[in-house]
Amino acid sequence: MNTIMIYLPIAMAFIGLAFMFTKRAWVLKQDPGDGKMKEISDYIYEGALAFLNAEYRLLTFFVIGASIVLAGISFIVPTTHILIVVAFVFGAFFSALAGNMGMKIATKTNVRTTQAARTSLPQALKVSFGGGTVMGLGVAGLAVLGLTTFFIFFFHFFMNGVWTSTEDMTIVLETLAGFSLGAESIALFARVGGGIYTKAADVGADLVGKVEAGIPEDDPRNPATIADNVGDNVGDVAGMGADLFGSYVATVLAAMVLGNYVIKDMGGNIQDAFGGIGPILLPMAIAGFGILFSIIGTMLVKITDDNAKEAQVQKALNIGNWVSILLTAVACFFLVQYMLPETMKMDFFGEGTKEISSMRVFYATIVGLVVGAVISSVTEYYTGLGTKPVMAIVQKSSTGAGTNVIAGLATGMISTFPTVLLFAAAIWISYALAGFYGVALAASAMMATTAMQLAIDAFGPISDNAGGIAEMSELPKEVRTRTDILDSVGNTTAATGKGFAIASAALTSLALFAAYVTFTGIDGINIFKAPVLAMLFVGGMIPVVFSALAMNSVGKAAMDMVYEVRRQFREIPGIMEGTGKPEYAKCVDISTKAALREMMLPGILTIGFPIAIVLLGKLVYADNNQLIAEMLGGYMAGVTVSGVLWAVFQNNAGGAWDNAKKSFEAGVMINGEMTYKGSDAHKAAVTGDTVGDPFKDTSGPSMNILIKLTCLIGLVIAPILGNGSHTISDKAACCASTEICTSMSKEECMANGCVSKTCKFMDAAAMPNHMMSKEVSIEKTNVDGKVKATIKTTINGKENIQSFEGTDAEVQAKIDSLK
Amino acid sequence: MNTIMIYLPIAMAFIGLAFMFTKRAWVLKQDPGDGKMKEISDYIYEGALAFLNAEYRLLTFFVIGASIVLAGISFIVPTTHILIVVAFVFGAFFSALAGNMGMKIATKTNVRTTQAARTSLPQALKVSFGGGTVMGLGVAGLAVLGLTTFFIFFFHFFMNGVWTSTEDMTIVLETLAGFSLGAESIALFARVGGGIYTKAADVGADLVGKVEAGIPEDDPRNPATIADNVGDNVGDVAGMGADLFGSYVATVLAAMVLGNYVIKDMGGNIQDAFGGIGPILLPMAIAGFGILFSIIGTMLVKITDDNAKEAQVQKALNIGNWVSILLTAVACFFLVQYMLPETMKMDFFGEGTKEISSMRVFYATIVGLVVGAVISSVTEYYTGLGTKPVMAIVQKSSTGAGTNVIAGLATGMISTFPTVLLFAAAIWISYALAGFYGVALAASAMMATTAMQLAIDAFGPISDNAGGIAEMSELPKEVRTRTDILDSVGNTTAATGKGFAIASAALTSLALFAAYVTFTGIDGINIFKAPVLAMLFVGGMIPVVFSALAMNSVGKAAMDMVYEVRRQFREIPGIMEGTGKPEYAKCVDISTKAALREMMLPGILTIGFPIAIVLLGKLVYADNNQLIAEMLGGYMAGVTVSGVLWAVFQNNAGGAWDNAKKSFEAGVMINGEMTYKGSDAHKAAVTGDTVGDPFKDTSGPSMNILIKLTCLIGLVIAPILGNGSHTISDKAACCASTEICTSMSKEECMANGCVSKTCKFMDAAAMPNHMMSKEVSIEKTNVDGKVKATIKTTINGKENIQSFEGTDAEVQAKIDSLK
Repeated sequence: MNTIMIYLPIAMAFIGLAFMFTKRAWVLKQDPGDGKMKEISDYIYEGALAFLNAEYRLLTFFVIGASIVLAGISFIVPTTHILIVVAFVFGAFFSALAGNMGMKIATKTNVRTTQAARTSLPQALKVSFGGGTVMGLGVAGLAVLGLTTFFIFFFHFFMNGVWTSTEDMTIVLETLAGFSLGAESIALFARVGGGIYTKAADVGADLVGKVEAGIPEDDPRNPATIADNVGDNVGDVAGMGADLFGSYVATVLAAMVLGNYVIKDMGGNIQDAFGGIGPILLPMAIAGFGILFSIIGTMLVKITDDNAKEAQVQKALNIGNWVSILLTAVACFFLVQYMLPETMKMDFFGEGTKEISSMRVFYATIVGLVVGAVISSVTEYYTGLGTKPVMAIVQKSSTGAGTNVIAGLATGMISTFPTVLLFAAAIWISYALAGFYGVALAASAMMATTAMQLAIDAFGPISDNAGGIAEMSELPKEVRTRTDILDSVGNTTAATGKGFAIASAALTSLALFAAYVTFTGIDGINIFKAPVLAMLFVGGMIPVVFSALAMNSVGKAAMDMVYEVRRQFREIPGIMEGTGKPEYAKCVDISTKAALREMMLPGILTIGFPIAIVLLGKLVYADNNQLIAEMLGGYMAGVTVSGVLWAVFQNNAGGAWDNAKKSFEAGVMINGEMTYKGSDAHKAAVTGDTVGDPFKDTSGPSMNILIKLTCLIGLVIAPILGNGSHTISDKAACCASTEICTSMSKEECMANGCVSKTCKFMDAAAMPNHMMSKEVSIEKTNVDGKVKATIKTTINGKENIQSFEGTDAEVQAKIDSLK
Repeated sequence: MNTIMIYLPIAMAFIGLAFMFTKRAWVLKQDPGDGKMKEISDYIYEGALAFLNAEYRLLTFFVIGASIVLAGISFIVPTTHILIVVAFVFGAFFSALAGNMGMKIATKTNVRTTQAARTSLPQALKVSFGGGTVMGLGVAGLAVLGLTTFFIFFFHFFMNGVWTSTEDMTIVLETLAGFSLGAESIALFARVGGGIYTKAADVGADLVGKVEAGIPEDDPRNPATIADNVGDNVGDVAGMGADLFGSYVATVLAAMVLGNYVIKDMGGNIQDAFGGIGPILLPMAIAGFGILFSIIGTMLVKITDDNAKEAQVQKALNIGNWVSILLTAVACFFLVQYMLPETMKMDFFGEGTKEISSMRVFYATIVGLVVGAVISSVTEYYTGLGTKPVMAIVQKSSTGAGTNVIAGLATGMISTFPTVLLFAAAIWISYALAGFYGVALAASAMMATTAMQLAIDAFGPISDNAGGIAEMSELPKEVRTRTDILDSVGNTTAATGKGFAIASAALTSLALFAAYVTFTGIDGINIFKAPVLAMLFVGGMIPVVFSALAMNSVGKAAMDMVYEVRRQFREIPGIMEGTGKPEYAKCVDISTKAALREMMLPGILTIGFPIAIVLLGKLVYADNNQLIAEMLGGYMAGVTVSGVLWAVFQNNAGGAWDNAKKSFEAGVMINGEMTYKGSDAHKAAVTGDTVGDPFKDTSGPSMNILIKLTCLIGLVIAPILGNGSHTISDKAACCASTEICTSMSKEECMANGCVSKTCKFMDAAAMPNHMMSKEVSIEKTNVDGKVKATIKTTINGKENIQSFEGTDAEVQAKIDSLK
């Protein structure tokens, strides 16, 4: 039984990958069109590949550097195993692979979509969504495959494939966290680098091409137009793929970690049909089934009417999406019933241990699914074409760019109201239902249909590219009309996809945060301690500064692009007449270099700050790891809260500006007058959109990686901050709590056979709390103002009795120091 | 001795007020100029007065409503006394009075400054700064007078003017918190209402006047020009005055509350020359001396050279400012040495009790003074004319409004980096030095020179008005040149003043936050509890939504103004030729109504949310006041962290945009070309400034009131959330812990003479922790897995012994329920 449920997710991952390869073969078989189209498509493919290769070359150094640091940590910290480095490298590699695969299929699908759009809209949707499906299933399949394989490997390596103790499983999952860390690190750079690339090219191309030279978008005479189309692929496809790959892995991992603590709360041992690790396997099982249901969902996305409009296309996508979500809900019901003990004991911090029925875990998954759906509606309300907030921005455009910008900013800011209330309710309810395990499973359920979500997300930029190719190849107008319908739907799904991404990131971060608190063994995170509060402030500031850096980077990179395009217009003879050939590669090169250069500082900020806090903490509170752990926890909370706010603010403001501008294409009624493209109001709306571009495509979407990566770094640092400051015995102790070897010399310990694979020799002083079975009983008597206390400490079965006398405060201080 | 130090601050307040009246008489004696000037000045005076009167009428209803609620609370909650209502009403009244006084003198000084500017710049500075001084000393004098008088009154009323216990003093200070709450509530409405008024008039006047009709700023033909000048007074003068009045009171109050807990940590009783309340009197004494030093500082502000430029004027202000700060530092040294015990015991949460020298409190005050100074430099760096960030925005203006806006936003965002690190360091260091008492005294020292700060702040809008009057009265060009110099310096001081305001608000909020935790008797605020974390999210969202509401209000109100001005231009014959007279009063009326209407929603949001959280908490956790208290604490922390970030972001972005626009007046070099007013780049910069206006004058400066008011509301609610959930005895108990009356019937208790003024009868069940002397000693034995515990609870001297047997978990649960 055990073996089936543990290997099942791998099987499902293989099914997903097999379906992906079939779909891929089908897409590649489609007609890529004639000479000009193919030529342009090849330019885009090569530009995107050049960027990814350059990016990966650079990131190889980062991975090597980070691996050395991790290896160092694993040598110093007894509970961190060197295998974390292997997991990290593979996580990074899989993430890069997922991005690369997605990007390749997207750049092959774009031209085929253009060609399909020459025949009919249904065919164009089929091809473009086919490309999206390949991307989605590739990412999800690789994520489940990698995570499950490494889990099984570590489970066998550290525990011989049988449950021993929560402590051993903690080491398995700590090591597995390396996989997630690797994935999320690459995601950060891919998202930020891709975001800078795409907006630098976009803004640069528009400023000189559209505004200065007065040529339309995607005009082949514009040297930056290829870079612009490459940007769609490296930003919206490869960046998004790496992002969701990281989210997916982090979410499942966090749920597994908390599943382990459910087992701990139940006495460290449960009897079930899954070798006693049902709560740990559940999130993986849900992820596995999610792949199957995503496949079913993607098969339902189709339209038949060649005269279909945006609404029908959107409806087709919605049907597929809803079916996969509903199937997931049903599967959660059966999986929870099947895999979890009927009643479970859970420790609710500050409220004691409660007995809860496993059904409450199912309800928590429903909370996650509902939040995922509602957040999409909320996002659509604030950013969709024709909605009240967007129309208000349109109206404000009539009095100039200033009022348009104010209205857009205010819309983004107001949109945090329902969103944050929704998140707060979700956190509270799913926690009330099943503790932080409930929060983590809410996130897992939400992320289960990642493959479907990503298919929906990825078809947008593919269609956008298809339209660009149609324009550049000067194809008949109806081709562009068809791709425009797909592109327009893609814009909406892009906005809702960002809402979905931040919702899942918020829940995942909280789950990681909970795992962090449990790993470090601290007594919660108390912001009434000034250093912790100070770090909450610092954490809150990071997303703001990160966003500013990303925005400035876009500005700088766009300027480089502007100068290059101006130079080509000036120096290449006949370029405006179409007789001179623009040097596309130069522009691609500029975007590439700028993106790689500019992604470094935000990356360093994200990774450097948590480490700096720990170092500063060690400097000031050398003997108080617990306080340092709380400080880092405060920092994590600050980053999460502020990051969520700024993500919602920036994504929605950007989305609203974009659609306010788009509204002018069909014409809008302002003060009783129909107003169109080219009017002053439209120009004001274009300004708003320029501001919104880096918001929604660079800094905004980076927020969710920022918060997840921060929490993951915390999790990996956690063992260092385990409460090793306690000096209970000066003898060597063995770390496996199930084996009573404490207060023995190293030799005695070895003679007793206390050494296991998960265990290194260490001083008891350096032994983290969760590795010790420790009991403290205190007797305190108070006679005539003199207080006497007897403290019996039992560590791993070995007793130690101490007595004190003194004033109440003195005795209490002594007791506190021993706790 | 006692009597001197307690009455000394009142004496100093009277000195301040006396000096204020002298200065006022001098200002009013100055020549108000000829007919046209006087007429315009009268319009402004009447418009401002009309707004304030309308505002106060409306706020009277609010004060009555809030008083009823407070009275209700004081009937339900035993520790809240009905006198809190009196304090609240007076706090509100004093705040309104301070705003009113400041506004009146400002509107009298403006025309006199114009007249003085006809003779020389030194004279103009003397008059305008004289007006500012009146304002500053009025606010500071009233604050110290009100707070000290009420403290003495309550101290005598509740404690007969002698120290009894920390618990009784808590009641004194809880009641005094009403004064601060009243002041801060009025400040909120004054700031938001004034901010909306001033920007609605400004934007409305500019959009139709400057942009559509092409007439210069402050042109008398523009119907909104009087409203615009009124706006400067109700926003920048009355609003700022009420704001700093509130800050000043809240800061001193918070320090007094924490001083009371210092005494508690030292055993509930200290022997000093001040009747045992030295630590409580210290903040008042510092405030009192601050008034004296501010007077000295203001006397040093003068220039002699009629050809002086901005730099010399700024230098004159700096000299006065620095002297008053340095004198305050010296005074702090002596006051701390004089008034505090040489060594003090302080409870550091989670670290136990430490003995610290009183000098560390002095160092904490130095931290506050340094932060105040550094924050001004940081603000100036990001917003000052000619600085690197501002010049970068200027450069970005050449590529359009979009890039200008992005650059401005990014500058505001980046500026949170040094600011937040500075705050975090200040919190951490002042706490490490002397606990939260140190944090509060850092804020107190920073705020001590409020009178001087306000004088510097207020002279700006006075000079701005003076320039407007010169323009409207068509005076010679050199008059405007002179007022422009003062106005330009005023813009810089306005920005640095906002930095100062948010720095003091941040520290004050933390002190209030600490007072809240102590009042409620909770064990810190642990964000690892999901409901607390959820509220941290909700709190973080509030400043964002508040800002959006304020911005939207400005937009709406400005639109009303635009339509009215357009109507007058259309309908009044001869208005553009100067023969028809614009209806100024109509525009004043529109701004007034809009401001009053629009200030309600943000006000309700601020006041309503903390109450909603408590109600929701009571609904879900009826029996767990402690958790509700922690939830509210999480909310307060969220509001504070996010509020500080958004204040810094908005103030600095707005300031930077403003000066980027101003840079074009003297001409700037862009891409090697001198660019001036009227260029495309300048137009882009104007757009940025339009966005920045509500940022820096409406939503940004409201943030500091939002966070202080939130923490104050929490403080007033605190007694409701005192840990009344404990059921220790079903007998009536008297609340005075010094009198051992617990577990007696009401009759017995009265017979024992246990009733004091601070004390009402209540069930022990409803008695908050800090009112009980409670000792719990626990004996736990563990024999063969059976655990037996004997718990001896001693409440106010009365013993109660309980025994339990059971499994370890059961016994522990029982023990926890009794703690």
